Amino acid sequence: MAHALRLAERGLCTTQPNPRVGCVIAQGAEVVGTGFHQRAGEPHAEVYALREAGERARGATAYVTLEPCAHHGRTPPCADALVAAGVKRVAIAAEDPFPQVDGRGMSLLRAAGITVDAGLMREAARELNIGFFSRIERSRPWVRVKLAMSLDGRTALASGESKWITGEAARADVQRWRARSSAILSGSGTVLADDPRLTVRLPEGEAFAPPLRVILDRQLRTPAGSHVLDGSVPTLLLHGAAASAADERFARVERIALAMSGDALDLRAVLALLAGRGCNEVQVEAGPTLCGALFAVGLADELLLYVAPLLLGDSARPLLHLPTLDDMARRWRLQVIDQRMLGQDIRLRLRPN
Amino acid sequence: MAHALRLAERGLCTTQPNPRVGCVIAQGAEVVGTGFHQRAGEPHAEVYALREAGERARGATAYVTLEPCAHHGRTPPCADALVAAGVKRVAIAAEDPFPQVDGRGMSLLRAAGITVDAGLMREAARELNIGFFSRIERSRPWVRVKLAMSLDGRTALASGESKWITGEAARADVQRWRARSSAILSGSGTVLADDPRLTVRLPEGEAFAPPLRVILDRQLRTPAGSHVLDGSVPTLLLHGAAASAADERFARVERIALAMSGDALDLRAVLALLAGRGCNEVQVEAGPTLCGALFAVGLADELLLYVAPLLLGDSARPLLHLPTLDDMARRWRLQVIDQRMLGQDIRLRLRPN
Repeated sequence: MAHALRLAERGLCTTQPNPRVGCVIAQGAEVVGTGFHQRAGEPHAEVYALREAGERARGATAYVTLEPCAHHGRTPPCADALVAAGVKRVAIAAEDPFPQVDGRGMSLLRAAGITVDAGLMREAARELNIGFFSRIERSRPWVRVKLAMSLDGRTALASGESKWITGEAARADVQRWRARSSAILSGSGTVLADDPRLTVRLPEGEAFAPPLRVILDRQLRTPAGSHVLDGSVPTLLLHGAAASAADERFARVERIALAMSGDALDLRAVLALLAGRGCNEVQVEAGPTLCGALFAVGLADELLLYVAPLLLGDSARPLLHLPTLDDMARRWRLQVIDQRMLGQDIRLRLRPN
Repeated sequence: MAHALRLAERGLCTTQPNPRVGCVIAQGAEVVGTGFHQRAGEPHAEVYALREAGERARGATAYVTLEPCAHHGRTPPCADALVAAGVKRVAIAAEDPFPQVDGRGMSLLRAAGITVDAGLMREAARELNIGFFSRIERSRPWVRVKLAMSLDGRTALASGESKWITGEAARADVQRWRARSSAILSGSGTVLADDPRLTVRLPEGEAFAPPLRVILDRQLRTPAGSHVLDGSVPTLLLHGAAASAADERFARVERIALAMSGDALDLRAVLALLAGRGCNEVQVEAGPTLCGALFAVGLADELLLYVAPLLLGDSARPLLHLPTLDDMARRWRLQVIDQRMLGQDIRLRLRPN
């Protein structure tokens, strides 16, 4: 199963909106077939593994990181293919909560007399598709907030200057997290301040499905000529219901008016919309207002924090705008799930407790 | 030499103002004597090792982490003892810059026909006594600034509440850094806000030389009844030259008037005074003003930073007051020399680049 998970990881940046899945077919200790899902619309992991195994699949054990599908989607059901190939046992890491599968893959296999064991390395398998599980089970994407700051928690000088806080290794790392995301979410404030591209730059030859750019722009302030309006990748601009309609600026992007929650766009509605579009992991690259709001309302699932070994001082810009706390008991608690050095910078990954 | 360094570390919290020194005497691969310096006024590492080796020191190699002394201090010169014992070779990790040694230990040994090699693991040996070398070579102590903050670089709520930002493991770790320090430096602002004890609490049976408490209190604001005035450990209160004299509050502490530098006490004068008193490592546990000032003028040698996985928001108190930067090129750059988890908290050690 560990082998199957490693195979599944090879689809990390390409399977969207599908989950990353790997499959290993073994006769005892001998691996006779391997496969992983590469791209939506293309064959599933099991199909590649069965093809490679051929006749040797008969009587074998198939290790699959996610419950085989039982429905006709863009490809025929994998459960049927496993039955047809005559495998004797199927070990599944995680059950598929997708409504058209949700246990039916396992039932179909068992009905054909195949031994089915579920739960082997389930946690790792769910972690690998944390966004997919979030979308299916919670009807919202997994929200990863990326921030870069100095040691003293500052993202930019008072003047707004923020270039090169972190080093090259950290910036390259950000690109990898973008590449595995279904969408990059930002706000018009960030667009106005930094004019970011919010596209993925990976070394040549590394495949990825370009994530959707999503800009929250309640008042349609995004200026003409902004990189995010250039149409180079699919882009979605979400604005307040009151905002006016036709505008040449937005010719190359999709625009949707959204419900408001007080003064701001309703973040739950934003995430519901993105889930509806098949977004599994959403990476937020925005300023202290949007990032702070996501934490304040409990919609931030993960903090990807790059800490540069610099001091910028207390006049520099803060990391997050959060409501004033009058009681330490109400602080936002997180848990470090990973920490490492990237060049001279520190990368922390944290999740709310 | 690695063995000798490990021995030297056993004096980490007790040798002040002396350096930590270890010694191993070996006949080929066989260790015949070991020793380390435990406490000022007590025998040096070489003496313990020679005692243990006895006659087997003759023709042996002595590994010493610091150049043996050549002068009569509170104990007789170790170089003489090594000569008298008939050792054949002395390997020294770091030369002793102390004016009464400074190469004379090595000369004395060589004059007696002993082979002397210096420099083996010199860097580690200097690191172990970084404060001692700083005091002798720069006439000021090694200044370690300890700070604890939330992920977003905040030390306390706007209300001032700051208790329990970090967890138990981090707080216990702070005690160990205090224990190895010659002095704990704080400011009257911190005393007024938190009334800290600034004493060392270690598990029973762990020896340490109590560090001097040093309070910068330009205007003698420290209130009667403050823990730092209780006389439980030697305490030094540094105030502005203008401040008035007799005051019952300060009966149990030493008070010295110091030069001013603008509105504040002259930090260089503070450190020169502490060096004059034999302080090797000074741990600063103070607020954003004093800590910021030390960084701003380049007197902070190390940052010991505890990061708790919490968010406190931008209305909470900042880590450091620093002059406003108008140019990113002027940012304070540091380098991470160590990072680790302590319970749920992250500990970073950094030094200016």
